[in-house]
Amino acid sequence: MKTAITPTREEDFAQWYQNVIKEAELAENSPTRGCMTIMPYGYAIWELIQEEMNKRIKATDTQNTYFPAMIPMSFFEKEAEHVEGFAKESAVITHYRLKTVDGKMDVDPEAKLTEPYILRPTSETMIGEATSRWIQSYRDLPMKLNQWANVFRWEMRTRIFLRSAEFLWQEGHCAFATEHEAMANVQQMLHVYGDFSKEILGVYSTLGEKTAEERFPGARHTFTREVMVQDGKALQTGTSHDLGQTFSKSFNIKFQSEEGKEEFAYTTSWGITTRMMGDIIAGLADDDGLVLPPKIAPHQVVILPFYRGDDRKDEIQKACLSLKQKLADLGIRALVDTTDARSSDKMWKWVKKGAPIRVEIGERELDAGSLSYVRRDIGKESKETLSTNDFLGKIDSVLEAMQTDIYEKHKAFTLDNTRTAKKLTDAEKWFKEGFKGFVLLPLSETEGAAFETVAEKYKVSRRCMPLDKPDHVIIAKSY
Amino acid sequence: MKTAITPTREEDFAQWYQNVIKEAELAENSPTRGCMTIMPYGYAIWELIQEEMNKRIKATDTQNTYFPAMIPMSFFEKEAEHVEGFAKESAVITHYRLKTVDGKMDVDPEAKLTEPYILRPTSETMIGEATSRWIQSYRDLPMKLNQWANVFRWEMRTRIFLRSAEFLWQEGHCAFATEHEAMANVQQMLHVYGDFSKEILGVYSTLGEKTAEERFPGARHTFTREVMVQDGKALQTGTSHDLGQTFSKSFNIKFQSEEGKEEFAYTTSWGITTRMMGDIIAGLADDDGLVLPPKIAPHQVVILPFYRGDDRKDEIQKACLSLKQKLADLGIRALVDTTDARSSDKMWKWVKKGAPIRVEIGERELDAGSLSYVRRDIGKESKETLSTNDFLGKIDSVLEAMQTDIYEKHKAFTLDNTRTAKKLTDAEKWFKEGFKGFVLLPLSETEGAAFETVAEKYKVSRRCMPLDKPDHVIIAKSY
Repeated sequence: MKTAITPTREEDFAQWYQNVIKEAELAENSPTRGCMTIMPYGYAIWELIQEEMNKRIKATDTQNTYFPAMIPMSFFEKEAEHVEGFAKESAVITHYRLKTVDGKMDVDPEAKLTEPYILRPTSETMIGEATSRWIQSYRDLPMKLNQWANVFRWEMRTRIFLRSAEFLWQEGHCAFATEHEAMANVQQMLHVYGDFSKEILGVYSTLGEKTAEERFPGARHTFTREVMVQDGKALQTGTSHDLGQTFSKSFNIKFQSEEGKEEFAYTTSWGITTRMMGDIIAGLADDDGLVLPPKIAPHQVVILPFYRGDDRKDEIQKACLSLKQKLADLGIRALVDTTDARSSDKMWKWVKKGAPIRVEIGERELDAGSLSYVRRDIGKESKETLSTNDFLGKIDSVLEAMQTDIYEKHKAFTLDNTRTAKKLTDAEKWFKEGFKGFVLLPLSETEGAAFETVAEKYKVSRRCMPLDKPDHVIIAKSY
Repeated sequence: MKTAITPTREEDFAQWYQNVIKEAELAENSPTRGCMTIMPYGYAIWELIQEEMNKRIKATDTQNTYFPAMIPMSFFEKEAEHVEGFAKESAVITHYRLKTVDGKMDVDPEAKLTEPYILRPTSETMIGEATSRWIQSYRDLPMKLNQWANVFRWEMRTRIFLRSAEFLWQEGHCAFATEHEAMANVQQMLHVYGDFSKEILGVYSTLGEKTAEERFPGARHTFTREVMVQDGKALQTGTSHDLGQTFSKSFNIKFQSEEGKEEFAYTTSWGITTRMMGDIIAGLADDDGLVLPPKIAPHQVVILPFYRGDDRKDEIQKACLSLKQKLADLGIRALVDTTDARSSDKMWKWVKKGAPIRVEIGERELDAGSLSYVRRDIGKESKETLSTNDFLGKIDSVLEAMQTDIYEKHKAFTLDNTRTAKKLTDAEKWFKEGFKGFVLLPLSETEGAAFETVAEKYKVSRRCMPLDKPDHVIIAKSY
């Protein structure tokens, strides 16, 4: 059977991933090395993610801010681990002027900065410096800040949404008077991400703690949300870090306690990025393209007017627009595709763009006051013809069912491809046989040289110790 | 009479401006040269501006996108005027790695980029390159794109919100098949900005066209929104450019017309920035601090529990929280200030932060089921004590009246400080006498060397030719 995307997932997962993005017009590689351009349809999905996540972050009494993107190089010297982890592979601003020589532009050597700036790979240092001044007393705590911003990491091998030299994210940075409150915040935000994934993204994820090897540079504990995508690899999207007093000591974030003592604050940081778009694409799309859960679909219902010739074109388009208005009144995002393309081209376009519900209205439907609709996640077997009023009466529950079904399907896929091993040798055997998925291995089996040999041979790594199985580690390939 | 901000506007406008920002905790200078940190209260105002503006931009069928912040240097060589106007004073990325030498970090000379990147001062070039590929046929037009992003201009003299090396903005970039449609878009967006200013910001502005000298580099027509702030200077916040075929020719943005001919598109660009925060501060604040129009106030009603001792503290706080909930049910953003500070300190805090309505509930009000409230724009003369129910019944109209009154006051201020001159010599005389404000001068009087001499002597410039008086030019000092 012909699929709308070639190659299929089975044939070439990496190429399929690129083609899904291309056909859905989500994003493209830009002329800037390793950077992507997020196109309107991709950005509309990101805006829905952002809007809902922003609400949930604000509900935790966190306030939005904006800090400079250019960070003085010396800031990175204050925290040694952090430098190793981030600052080394970064975009460096060394000059502030260009000049024209013989009609060609070049950097003006006379405009060299005395101290270079680094484009932020993350803002612990910048926000640490500011909060060290903003926080004086226990009354100023907790201080819970967040920013939505672009960040830069000079990645060598890039892939749209999964790894790029510039991406968009939110980064939360909080300071607390006690270790206990800091840890509670780290856990709370991890669960904000987990709940968001389940309720909004339609993506099943495993929440867990990173092993020491995989922690955020400078963190005492790093928690993560790991998603299994359809080639069985893990995608880490959403982390939450307990930074202890590492940054408060490097940046002198002190406060006077209720008892009048001077103490260092406990800080946390947590973030999600445009990588979440990768969850949806690599996790939920199929061989016909994107499959969008209704809650993040720019158009939840796409209405296609079907007509032959111009005879009843106006009448049919009018019926479509009237339906769109009725859906809008119900709070549903609907679109009528009135472009000139052929009906079948329009149909495939919205299949590839993953529109949750496609409605068709042609002459027959017009005369009967009815319509046909299809659910994207099921396909033509879900096709139903019913009166417009019946459709309006049930559309809410159809969208709800679809949101849940997509999640349950992804959950089942993840669990089906997760195995528990007692011994490292079992895991090794499975990977040797070509097993693609997660292997849960007892923590003790992941320590020592034997594990490192297996990890290197099969290109797998420690993903996390799941919250519900903390004495085990998920071992898998990853992006 | 003592004012909450010293110095006053009259005594030292520049210092007053800084202190209003500081006392309201809107933003501060950052350790990065020329860059500001937008603090939570300032960012909350910006978010309200952004949310409403985003709605209005989308209502014009414009789609949001995201393009890379790093632009290859060669892109700027394609449009000569644009280079002169922007690229020369820019942050230049020359390297992609740091190294540690003797425990100190430095730029790694081996990681030099073959082509430097410029941090975007504006994105005509980047978006031009992409749309030259995205646009093939007249069917792809109009293409109306926008992005919310950070931008960078290496300014020598900076001032928070008014001029900084990094700021936030939206930049719209559209392409059309005809000159007529492009010009209609330029006008439409200018009016979106003008209407927004009147309806949301509470700021009176003059819409007009820039004279040739003041156009955007590469533009054929530049339209602007000019605001008079309280020292009589002009603040340009919001511009809309007709770029003709300048960029479509430099970046090869061609389309096949309905008749099958290959033609260059007509492009436009338009934007507003965090400078709009400057409109509100320099335009509307008074000697007691910020005065926020209700539509952009993070907290439209701030409720202050007043109590002596702990006796009835809980009761009073409960009444305050109950009022807050009732206001929330009416869709009004309310806050109860339950911090430990003294009542008078809390009161002044919210005066300086410009909260539109301050409500006080103490023992007397509790017993009477009443409350007192004060409008920030009028002050204590507006104080009224009334039953909670009566307050809830009229709060909507109080906020509406306040929104209008703030605008009308600023309009009257602007018109009071605007004069019309017949001759350059009149304008010169007024400026010599110390007149602060706008002078409307016939266009013919602004051409030639005599005008340049006056302009230089009094540090005034051509602001715009008002839409409703296109044969005149506004002459004023500006930021």
